Amino acid sequence: MLLKSNLDEAQTGKRISAKGYAVANKDDTFKPFSFTRHALGENDILIEILYAGICHSDIHSARSEWHEGIYPMVPGHEIAGKVVAVGSKVSKFQVGDYAGVGCMVNSCGECAACKASNEQFCENGKMVLTYDCKDCFHNDEPTFGGYSNNIVVSEKFAIKVPKDAPLDKVAPLLCAGITTYSPLKFSKIKKGDKVGVAGFGGLGVMALKYAIKMGAEVSVFARNENKKQEALRLGAKALYTTDKLDSIKERFDFIISTIPTRYDPMSYINLLKNGGEMAIVGLPPSGESIETDMTRLVFQANKKVYGSLIGGIKETQEMLDFSLEHRIYPETEIIRADEINMAYENLTNGKAKFRYVIDMGSLES
Amino acid sequence: MLLKSNLDEAQTGKRISAKGYAVANKDDTFKPFSFTRHALGENDILIEILYAGICHSDIHSARSEWHEGIYPMVPGHEIAGKVVAVGSKVSKFQVGDYAGVGCMVNSCGECAACKASNEQFCENGKMVLTYDCKDCFHNDEPTFGGYSNNIVVSEKFAIKVPKDAPLDKVAPLLCAGITTYSPLKFSKIKKGDKVGVAGFGGLGVMALKYAIKMGAEVSVFARNENKKQEALRLGAKALYTTDKLDSIKERFDFIISTIPTRYDPMSYINLLKNGGEMAIVGLPPSGESIETDMTRLVFQANKKVYGSLIGGIKETQEMLDFSLEHRIYPETEIIRADEINMAYENLTNGKAKFRYVIDMGSLES
Repeated sequence: MLLKSNLDEAQTGKRISAKGYAVANKDDTFKPFSFTRHALGENDILIEILYAGICHSDIHSARSEWHEGIYPMVPGHEIAGKVVAVGSKVSKFQVGDYAGVGCMVNSCGECAACKASNEQFCENGKMVLTYDCKDCFHNDEPTFGGYSNNIVVSEKFAIKVPKDAPLDKVAPLLCAGITTYSPLKFSKIKKGDKVGVAGFGGLGVMALKYAIKMGAEVSVFARNENKKQEALRLGAKALYTTDKLDSIKERFDFIISTIPTRYDPMSYINLLKNGGEMAIVGLPPSGESIETDMTRLVFQANKKVYGSLIGGIKETQEMLDFSLEHRIYPETEIIRADEINMAYENLTNGKAKFRYVIDMGSLES
Repeated sequence: MLLKSNLDEAQTGKRISAKGYAVANKDDTFKPFSFTRHALGENDILIEILYAGICHSDIHSARSEWHEGIYPMVPGHEIAGKVVAVGSKVSKFQVGDYAGVGCMVNSCGECAACKASNEQFCENGKMVLTYDCKDCFHNDEPTFGGYSNNIVVSEKFAIKVPKDAPLDKVAPLLCAGITTYSPLKFSKIKKGDKVGVAGFGGLGVMALKYAIKMGAEVSVFARNENKKQEALRLGAKALYTTDKLDSIKERFDFIISTIPTRYDPMSYINLLKNGGEMAIVGLPPSGESIETDMTRLVFQANKKVYGSLIGGIKETQEMLDFSLEHRIYPETEIIRADEINMAYENLTNGKAKFRYVIDMGSLES
């Protein structure tokens, strides 16, 4: 439960006390951590965090695997909770509403990208990540993420969540959901399209569910047949093992690659129809690249390859509404806040079966 | 002049005598060569070749640099000439018309690709290249290209050329023209678009001319400023040298890469607008690849990269009509048939300034 002191802080314009779990450096394990967040601005809302998903990129960030992190670091960009205070000019939320926060908490709002609600591509470089980022709108103080009991965020960057939504399932949608939903929309997937999903982990499952709901006929490409029954149960037409790509006769309008290891994207190009498109959303572990020879793109002409990176706020809201309407949810496992280290270990060792979601009610008050 | 015997052969259903220049193996130089072509079928036309362009891929083929060639080989897939005989069911041409032939002389005509006039992607594998190819419609006999005095071709694969067209300029359009025109259309370039042309040789010049005529504002990326005046004279807004790509502030809707050497395509991705597209039509010399790390595509999200390979017959006709209407021609230098070896040497050494076009009237009869 949120302390009454938070409400007093919000009303009196003071910094907001918060507690969560942080690492002090890239080799550290998570320990309880107390800190403060910036005061509630007139366009901000204060959210009591109820659930926070653990995304694999949290691990990369906590361990400074992509770039040198800002410590102490409180990760978490899959956040769902309850609005407990609103700034004087807030119109989108009322106290008591449910809200979600994904990978971003602010941006310039003025450039062409922001105006088109592609805030992740803010042309003025003012997009503020939910954690491990300098907040240029608040004296460059570091941002802290969702492994904590509250967050203060500009209402524009909070996603509306209806009160009957399963918040533990909503949280991971704010990263895993939008990451797969966005390219399916960008490539205009429609009824009857043939879609391939390469890589069948958390992202692959979401891509399969969305593509089926959009009317596509979906096949899965996976390293082995371990998940064949699950894929078929979820509606896949077929599961092809990746050692036999060359023998696949089917041709696809769209392939989404969620593969999180090294591979050659060109080995999928041949599977596209003329005019087909391939979106890459998976990234290999830190330091590894997806090397390929693009001369093969010329001989496999008129097949477009692109990368996709989360999605804008407007589209994130659209994704959430679509997911709730059609009950498209990730497979999740709820853990306590003091189990984050265990979760990281399992995720690193490939032992995690589902998306871990932290029940923030488990934070000792 | 075409021998009278060719007309007799055409009328009596005999094989058509031809002469041209051929190499006997990958290390040979071009020497005069006599051969025969398949008889005039009911849907075929016999063209007296007046001009044939020399394309860089002719060199790769003649030297077996891409794959083991079929010898003796008569290259040439930029062909313009006069129709001298037509089969009984031919409706598109009359004797005396001008006609062009590009990279293909036949395909199945029945698959989805052929029906959509994407014959270069014939799904039944029956696309027949103009030379260095087994002709599956004629007992797998080898095809012979345009460095010769005549060609027999299915009327469907011949391009209509008006009688006032400059045939020496038309010939190279049938490869260099369509190769650059097709991706500009595939990416739907329109008035006001910002287009970048990477590599400013023969293909780059054509891309610049087409893009400007389509209403785009075009900039050129080149290794040095040697061709800056020419680029500006032809209507380019700017010429950027490739060592300074990082400092370019402009962002482009479309970039076409005609670069014929090793480079990293990802170094251009940052120059695209969100949603922008890059087409690759240039290929490095044999054995060399365009290695790149596609993880960078993910961080430069929503920017599509694709390869493009000539174009279909319908689009080739459209390209030719567009080129003639707007007087968009390649820069050419006319040579005699006995100068082919000199032309190959200059093209290999980078000494060729313009597209070489062989005047077939120079073939000794």
